[in-house]
Amino acid sequence: MKNPFNSVFVLFFLLITSLGSAQLIKTKTPARAKGQTDVLRMAAPALPVVRVAFIGLGMRGADAVERMTYIKGVEIVALCDMLPERTKASNEALVKLGFPKAKEFYGENAWKEVTKLPNVDLVYIATDWLNHAPIGVQAMKDGKHVAIEVPGALTMKEIWELIDTSEKTRKHCIQLENCVYDFFELTTLNMAQKGIFGEILHAEGSYIHGLQPYWGEYWNNWRMDYNRKHRGDLYATHGMGPACLALNIHRGDKMNYLVSMDTKAVGNPAYIKQKTGETVTDFKSGDHTMTMIRTENGKTIQIQHDVTSPRPYTRMYQLSGTKGFANKYPYEGYAIDEEQVGSDIVPGHKKLSAHSYMPDEVKKALMIKYKNPIVVDIEEKAKEVGGHGGMDFIMDYRLIYCLQNGLPLDMDVYDLAEWSCLGPLTAISLDNNSAPVEIPDFTRGNWNKLKTVEFSK
Amino acid sequence: MKNPFNSVFVLFFLLITSLGSAQLIKTKTPARAKGQTDVLRMAAPALPVVRVAFIGLGMRGADAVERMTYIKGVEIVALCDMLPERTKASNEALVKLGFPKAKEFYGENAWKEVTKLPNVDLVYIATDWLNHAPIGVQAMKDGKHVAIEVPGALTMKEIWELIDTSEKTRKHCIQLENCVYDFFELTTLNMAQKGIFGEILHAEGSYIHGLQPYWGEYWNNWRMDYNRKHRGDLYATHGMGPACLALNIHRGDKMNYLVSMDTKAVGNPAYIKQKTGETVTDFKSGDHTMTMIRTENGKTIQIQHDVTSPRPYTRMYQLSGTKGFANKYPYEGYAIDEEQVGSDIVPGHKKLSAHSYMPDEVKKALMIKYKNPIVVDIEEKAKEVGGHGGMDFIMDYRLIYCLQNGLPLDMDVYDLAEWSCLGPLTAISLDNNSAPVEIPDFTRGNWNKLKTVEFSK
Repeated sequence: MKNPFNSVFVLFFLLITSLGSAQLIKTKTPARAKGQTDVLRMAAPALPVVRVAFIGLGMRGADAVERMTYIKGVEIVALCDMLPERTKASNEALVKLGFPKAKEFYGENAWKEVTKLPNVDLVYIATDWLNHAPIGVQAMKDGKHVAIEVPGALTMKEIWELIDTSEKTRKHCIQLENCVYDFFELTTLNMAQKGIFGEILHAEGSYIHGLQPYWGEYWNNWRMDYNRKHRGDLYATHGMGPACLALNIHRGDKMNYLVSMDTKAVGNPAYIKQKTGETVTDFKSGDHTMTMIRTENGKTIQIQHDVTSPRPYTRMYQLSGTKGFANKYPYEGYAIDEEQVGSDIVPGHKKLSAHSYMPDEVKKALMIKYKNPIVVDIEEKAKEVGGHGGMDFIMDYRLIYCLQNGLPLDMDVYDLAEWSCLGPLTAISLDNNSAPVEIPDFTRGNWNKLKTVEFSK
Repeated sequence: MKNPFNSVFVLFFLLITSLGSAQLIKTKTPARAKGQTDVLRMAAPALPVVRVAFIGLGMRGADAVERMTYIKGVEIVALCDMLPERTKASNEALVKLGFPKAKEFYGENAWKEVTKLPNVDLVYIATDWLNHAPIGVQAMKDGKHVAIEVPGALTMKEIWELIDTSEKTRKHCIQLENCVYDFFELTTLNMAQKGIFGEILHAEGSYIHGLQPYWGEYWNNWRMDYNRKHRGDLYATHGMGPACLALNIHRGDKMNYLVSMDTKAVGNPAYIKQKTGETVTDFKSGDHTMTMIRTENGKTIQIQHDVTSPRPYTRMYQLSGTKGFANKYPYEGYAIDEEQVGSDIVPGHKKLSAHSYMPDEVKKALMIKYKNPIVVDIEEKAKEVGGHGGMDFIMDYRLIYCLQNGLPLDMDVYDLAEWSCLGPLTAISLDNNSAPVEIPDFTRGNWNKLKTVEFSK
């Protein structure tokens, strides 16, 4: 050896070379405690009457209280918000609808009394994002099932705490992802499970919806504030939910890694300047953020986030399979070969081709034929009660139905983890020139135990 | 120092850490030869009559010959193809249209005689992809301007050869990217240049178009064969062209890096099995390939490629700005605030919001108001001659118009490089878990010399 540095250099070169072909930025997966097991398809003892406490009664919570009054076998026992007027308003609404007054809580730490209440089965959390996971963890520790608005958690630490707490306490921890319950998405999921699209290889979803019209409506402007302080896809679950269910994530497939890219921030800083006069130079969330995800089985997902650009609302829902295609926004339609649909679906219809959207009459007939079984009995009621056209009611109804019957919920804490992890993991990718970031297997080894998404009957 | 390996370890750790935040996979940028200068806005001596030789008379070339007969001041002097019957068929078409017979060439190396011809100004190349760049380079060396079908080149080596040859010979080297000449894209580019969309932050484009219906139509099935042997976005230019022009790439901005992700290959191997019985296990191009690109000025581009999935044709053209939004496929429309459009555009129209697509009558009025100046005189003729609804004719017309008048062409060899480099660079990203890959500055330092895309008048 002529020069001892040569070998160091060679070693270094080899490592760099191998990094080039395999490097993923990894976050730590905590070890599962001894004796602790997963909560896949976990059922809890049936609760013929579900006693619910609501924490957070602002933009989403107040509506949820009212929707819940339409479901039989629910007792609303506690209402809690930062602001006394919100708690009181929700209670007045309850009484007006003919229900008993609930116990009232308000103030910054009032939620801690609520999770401790002995006569509560389910804590329904619709606070600002920062409080989602801390309240969820404590509620499970206090023996309650929890349902948390999206995203269920903001950091990898919070996500793992929710998982560990659910696994330890055997309490349900579900994320209130209403978009999986929209009619087109539910029907399309049913069609996907019946194989109409062949093997689904690619899915898309997004949240493209201006936040600026809601200026002043969020307590302390917390949502704009969070966007200012954080980079990444901060609100990925509306896109992720329907995409991941269609791809059976942690039910036979798993997400392996993501890469993310964003534009600079222009729109929201300009808006804040216009509203307050402040020149904002520290706005972290780019106007437009895109993320690509690859799965173990060689499928891909694309997710976008944009809460500032002036453009039409879209969730970009899209499934692309080897036999057919589904699309929503701006055009809701299917493109599927005749042989997959059956020529008898609409007598005399023009022969279908997967290279163009099918006629409306065929689409309508297909959507009736493949209506998701979980909505058949409650569709009319859902449209009557409303909440984003009915999907919010279906979400609440399914949650209560499964709890009342002691059934596994439609989604679990791993769904919450997978859909919420986009926030922190995209931030890592963005801060590293869009480098690939590993998505942990939140089931810690059991992603292949179940074979498909299942809605309990 | 207790252990000499400590310092090595620390050194290594520091390097890895810094790699984490900045690592881009880089390809080599060859140095520009002494005395050689860029060809930005290069003009060549005016050619009142442009003498054209066509090489490649298959799917695209034969149509191009016919279209060119509608342009005054063009002489079609040579026709060349691998197959004698194609050369003869094009010549017969010429004669039928009342034009003099061109000189005929055919066979594998016949193109080498064509580029040498003394009486040719422009070589129009529409061969299989593998021959694009080699013929282009030789034609420039032989003193001809060249126009090459998309993609103009397949490898970084070919791309740099085309650039160096154009810079050395001062011959034009343009890529025949017809999609930048479609009416909606041209109008929208004009609106973009007038600031209607504010600052454009994000653009999208794609080529989603099944290749299978063309089985047997490509000589030796070369296109499916290329997809079988190569991974990556192999046909990115239809998406890249309109997006890059709207973002003024190498005219004040430049693309810095890309990341790419694909699905496994399912559709095309299954199709080959069905057609030939062969079980294909070595098909490299995934069914669906996505690429994200970030620019120096903090803008993003998304490009998709899919030539097998059963779904409607789309080029996904989309521009998202701080003041408005343009979208094509499946719905062609604009969403722009009233203040950007002017309330007088359609008297009495409903007030516009950027959060929904404008009514058709306003869109129509806007598209008339902002019709791109380059199409005003030739729109009717273009629609009559046809070629993808007229855009192919506009492309040919503009090429000849600029050559006849000694003007810089609408696009240059750097556009060719930027749009074609997606093939080889996405392959590198895909083979490295979607790692970011640097996109070279093909102008070698002059990307900020021009300030906007300019079509010569």
